[in-house]
Amino acid sequence: MHKKNITIAPSLMSADLCNLERSIREIEKEGIDTLHLDLIDGHFSPSMPLGIDTIKQLRKITDMNFDVHIMSHNNEFFIEEMVKVGVQQITFHIESSTHIDRNIQLIKKNGIKAGVALNPSTSLTVLDYVLPECDTILLMLINPGFATDKNEQKVAYSIQKVKDLYELIQTKQLSTKIEVDGRVSLEAIPDLVRAGADILVAGSTSLFLKGQSLAENKKLVEQAIEKGFYKEAK
Amino acid sequence: MHKKNITIAPSLMSADLCNLERSIREIEKEGIDTLHLDLIDGHFSPSMPLGIDTIKQLRKITDMNFDVHIMSHNNEFFIEEMVKVGVQQITFHIESSTHIDRNIQLIKKNGIKAGVALNPSTSLTVLDYVLPECDTILLMLINPGFATDKNEQKVAYSIQKVKDLYELIQTKQLSTKIEVDGRVSLEAIPDLVRAGADILVAGSTSLFLKGQSLAENKKLVEQAIEKGFYKEAK
Amino acid sequence: MHKKNITIAPSLMSADLCNLERSIREIEKEGIDTLHLDLIDGHFSPSMPLGIDTIKQLRKITDMNFDVHIMSHNNEFFIEEMVKVGVQQITFHIESSTHIDRNIQLIKKNGIKAGVALNPSTSLTVLDYVLPECDTILLMLINPGFATDKNEQKVAYSIQKVKDLYELIQTKQLSTKIEVDGRVSLEAIPDLVRAGADILVAGSTSLFLKGQSLAENKKLVEQAIEKGFYKEAK
Amino acid sequence: MHKKNITIAPSLMSADLCNLERSIREIEKEGIDTLHLDLIDGHFSPSMPLGIDTIKQLRKITDMNFDVHIMSHNNEFFIEEMVKVGVQQITFHIESSTHIDRNIQLIKKNGIKAGVALNPSTSLTVLDYVLPECDTILLMLINPGFATDKNEQKVAYSIQKVKDLYELIQTKQLSTKIEVDGRVSLEAIPDLVRAGADILVAGSTSLFLKGQSLAENKKLVEQAIEKGFYKEAK
Amino acid sequence: MHKKNITIAPSLMSADLCNLERSIREIEKEGIDTLHLDLIDGHFSPSMPLGIDTIKQLRKITDMNFDVHIMSHNNEFFIEEMVKVGVQQITFHIESSTHIDRNIQLIKKNGIKAGVALNPSTSLTVLDYVLPECDTILLMLINPGFATDKNEQKVAYSIQKVKDLYELIQTKQLSTKIEVDGRVSLEAIPDLVRAGADILVAGSTSLFLKGQSLAENKKLVEQAIEKGFYKEAK
Amino acid sequence: MHKKNITIAPSLMSADLCNLERSIREIEKEGIDTLHLDLIDGHFSPSMPLGIDTIKQLRKITDMNFDVHIMSHNNEFFIEEMVKVGVQQITFHIESSTHIDRNIQLIKKNGIKAGVALNPSTSLTVLDYVLPECDTILLMLINPGFATDKNEQKVAYSIQKVKDLYELIQTKQLSTKIEVDGRVSLEAIPDLVRAGADILVAGSTSLFLKGQSLAENKKLVEQAIEKGFYKEAK
Repeated sequence: MHKKNITIAPSLMSADLCNLERSIREIEKEGIDTLHLDLIDGHFSPSMPLGIDTIKQLRKITDMNFDVHIMSHNNEFFIEEMVKVGVQQITFHIESSTHIDRNIQLIKKNGIKAGVALNPSTSLTVLDYVLPECDTILLMLINPGFATDKNEQKVAYSIQKVKDLYELIQTKQLSTKIEVDGRVSLEAIPDLVRAGADILVAGSTSLFLKGQSLAENKKLVEQAIEKGFYKEAK
Repeated sequence: MHKKNITIAPSLMSADLCNLERSIREIEKEGIDTLHLDLIDGHFSPSMPLGIDTIKQLRKITDMNFDVHIMSHNNEFFIEEMVKVGVQQITFHIESSTHIDRNIQLIKKNGIKAGVALNPSTSLTVLDYVLPECDTILLMLINPGFATDKNEQKVAYSIQKVKDLYELIQTKQLSTKIEVDGRVSLEAIPDLVRAGADILVAGSTSLFLKGQSLAENKKLVEQAIEKGFYKEAK
Repeated sequence: MHKKNITIAPSLMSADLCNLERSIREIEKEGIDTLHLDLIDGHFSPSMPLGIDTIKQLRKITDMNFDVHIMSHNNEFFIEEMVKVGVQQITFHIESSTHIDRNIQLIKKNGIKAGVALNPSTSLTVLDYVLPECDTILLMLINPGFATDKNEQKVAYSIQKVKDLYELIQTKQLSTKIEVDGRVSLEAIPDLVRAGADILVAGSTSLFLKGQSLAENKKLVEQAIEKGFYKEAK
Repeated sequence: MHKKNITIAPSLMSADLCNLERSIREIEKEGIDTLHLDLIDGHFSPSMPLGIDTIKQLRKITDMNFDVHIMSHNNEFFIEEMVKVGVQQITFHIESSTHIDRNIQLIKKNGIKAGVALNPSTSLTVLDYVLPECDTILLMLINPGFATDKNEQKVAYSIQKVKDLYELIQTKQLSTKIEVDGRVSLEAIPDLVRAGADILVAGSTSLFLKGQSLAENKKLVEQAIEKGFYKEAK
Repeated sequence: MHKKNITIAPSLMSADLCNLERSIREIEKEGIDTLHLDLIDGHFSPSMPLGIDTIKQLRKITDMNFDVHIMSHNNEFFIEEMVKVGVQQITFHIESSTHIDRNIQLIKKNGIKAGVALNPSTSLTVLDYVLPECDTILLMLINPGFATDKNEQKVAYSIQKVKDLYELIQTKQLSTKIEVDGRVSLEAIPDLVRAGADILVAGSTSLFLKGQSLAENKKLVEQAIEKGFYKEAK
Repeated sequence: MHKKNITIAPSLMSADLCNLERSIREIEKEGIDTLHLDLIDGHFSPSMPLGIDTIKQLRKITDMNFDVHIMSHNNEFFIEEMVKVGVQQITFHIESSTHIDRNIQLIKKNGIKAGVALNPSTSLTVLDYVLPECDTILLMLINPGFATDKNEQKVAYSIQKVKDLYELIQTKQLSTKIEVDGRVSLEAIPDLVRAGADILVAGSTSLFLKGQSLAENKKLVEQAIEKGFYKEAK
């Protein structure tokens, strides 16, 4: 593997929600161009962090790439809302979708990158036919929507799953990106990068670690990514 | 009717969602002590304006009374989340509730004011037994969650419904408050006050009218309220 | 009551579904201008008589007024489909609707007559506020979608309910029409007319009675209607 | 009111579920001929006390009248199961039913007494048309399925609701029975009887009070009933 | 592969729904013995082309084999209705079924051929255990129920999926038929036949192509099938 | 394979539900330490054999290991109820779960053995990542909840599926137990044991065979198990 580009996608949930403009400006200043947005409806998971109106207003103040992760049993509604807002990538959960191919087409015909998100235990066989249609596969490393539960651990098999998906993509000669989400900590990043992750959703255990500035944290994340390449090169 | 206290409850949805802290400080400066928060889950209505995490972070920066209006088919989840956040009033829709009395008890045993919200067409007979248990009845004057639809009009019968509810409360000698929500404009306020409204959810057609400052708008709202008392006195 | 116009609305379900064009021509020849179409989705009731594609093709061959009765838990989808087809009246069940006022507005803004349908046991109090917005109220005289059950009887209280609704409309000085549906037989018609029905959904127990021509049956229906006026006049 | 017959219906939930045959024999020995069975499915309420197989096996060992109270969103399934078992009365919740009249007919055509059950806050207007079809109306005095919550109180307005229903039945000259369920304690019984209750669901606060025998408790219940008549006579 | 029998199954949706008897007679005249019927309930997909009553009346006028494709979340209801009508094959979607084996047994014990239908993206691993129980596997080549969307394309991977299934069936030495549905055009047929398809659902892009008679179109379809065999033989 | 321990888990459904204490004592006397409890909610399958209150009361009279098999679309509710009761193993259906890993963690953090249950046709690929987290995999050999249907057969492929799972566990060097449920008859046991089953849910076709005592039946079961080892040894 050559030293590929890794995208750091800060999670809006970890930002200062009472001063979003200030948070966005700080993130932009660090040269970060992607923002990860979690849309959960309280039904798919017992959580509803962000609203659509917040995303609409954010869209007016920044040109960052919005990377929206929908967690709902009503994917079409949220896909259509996000298309209207104007975002750059939409992933939705394969576990709550009946018409997976249809949803991907619906996103892509609007010029938006499309992908599916998989819960920790979901088998990669669900990608048997739809993988080539996806720009990105988002792998959840923790159970989505239960992040605030302190007992919630990163699932044991997450690194193996990233590796398996990476091999699958290589075997099929695709350029699908692997996005990882859930406790993507400074400690976890080297192994995730080494396993094949392309997009890191960065939250309170990396880019938003308390006690240091965003700039300092960003450097730590970059060092962790480098470590992944180094490890990998051995 | 004596000149009673009318509560102006600015709707968070109409604030600057990218700079909430600044918006809240401005509102507080005007001596307004109540904030109206709409929790819609995208299932009850095709809308999901705000997230729970935004409310949690808001709770840390202000002592305003949080008046939460839940629009969901999953009331218990949202009631429990709001109890955890620490709010001052919770209303939920009677149309999507099976255990109405139970939900009210659940709210009140946590020391929070409780009430039910009614869609425009819902008959007041649904209150036959539960009215005395409610601190507040929220009457929707437009169809909730469709506010962005420009064709959406305030329903023709809304003033009559406020009057009917007011009479019901008087007849039963209760102190239940009437909250009105949906296009509560400067033009509508006098009639609503005269009809018996106690709490006005104020949004883009009153407190957040563009072109004037919040302070100027607040004066206009107060004048509209006065007009309602004057009218009423005649 | 003066001798008002009664609309006979033949139910498509009773027509020859393998030769619909021929059936429609026969009906048109009798000067009947309204066609009653039942859209049931198999969820609201265990029945799914007609499909949308049949209605679309019918629309191309006749200018009759299409009076569509939606029986679904997914009213918005079917309303929008019928708006696209181009129909003249849409009623939907109040028992399966959360946003009743909204649905009526959605229909009416497309220039289509709107109304709600009530199951036999549903109280008229559900109309307390929405009645003036309705062009028509459809009263089910049998449990909708169970018509093929031979034990299914016309509910005992149906005539009383028509009378109560008629009085309500008179009291409120409205021009809302009363549509009756379910075993509207030759025997039942006089009492229904006398009670105040305006639109009769005519099926296998009246207009499509076997053994006689449609023309002969139509005369019998008209005689039954006359009997209702006569009775009423007494 | 003349001194009418009051039915004491012991709730199976309060019996010794590990020794049901023994419990049933004890109850029979006291001359009690009705057994109240709560069928909750964990969806209508967060509770599922009894299973269908238990009822099936009970049916084989006793001729008592089985009075089944269904709390489900899937009434038809449970009605049909109970019809197969062979029971004497079935009530189902009006709040979770679309085809109320239909369900009542389904029960009655099998020679079984039918009725609807109402949650505490449900208005009696839901009975406007269906009351004459019902053999029994079951009024819940607590929120059904939350009985194990120790904070759960009998709702304040329950006596008034029994009275209102009693008057309604008298006015319509019907013989519908009023069944009351939920904390029907020795203290509550006199007022309930006086208000018009016909069937008392007796559980842990009356017939199954600990520290006394069933026979002793039954006497206390009968005394409480007498007190109701006496009070009423005043 | 020897030159096997290919079944042409005209889709009723493409017929003249206002003159079904005439359409059926024309189809029969061409020696076609199978009719493909799509039962969609508006919930599984936003579409409800045909009703059950139409199928019932059709059953009375023709002895053709009815090949019913159920698209619903309520498979048991539609299976039971189709069993009552008397059809020759039933397929239902595996994505909306909990009790797949059960549904197949339910169909087969009535002497009807059974099979499952798969959405485009569904992995063949769902057939790991149930394949030998199925008479037919229906592969959707487009997203079912979205056919009227002109942007809807045949999915890119459809030919590969037919091949994969064909190999699976050969490896397991089964005689399961492969049915293909969705834009089975004259252009697509040779490759589909070559890949292993046994039953072709023929609609507006083959058997019902406008501008030619059914007889002429049938010849074109047969030529396209031949081309598939020829290709395959190379 | 060495002669491993096979657990016989009598199914409570087959016991005398009117005299459970007596049944439990009899089972305990035979040295059986595990009791299999089926929790079905009438929604997942048309069956609701046992209630939660019965399990609660049973818990007070015996120390047997409770092995609970949840069949519901509402797994979290039932898992939490069973945790409160205090049971030793919980399995839930993978077909009705969105957050499989989460549910397993929820069970295990309470010190209870966890596993998933699979319907007959469900592919083992669903276990690709979650298998190492499971203490037990429960394989249904018949369609769950349809046991009373006399036409219901043990699915043809059940032995093969047990073998496949056994190999998977061996390959991954895990100690996960295989539990088999559904017509585990005296005739079937040798093959099931030989295929790799560890826990046998024993009902009316083995441990509760009529005409013999529980002790006699237990010997027959043990002989059948021995036969499995013997066969296997060949």
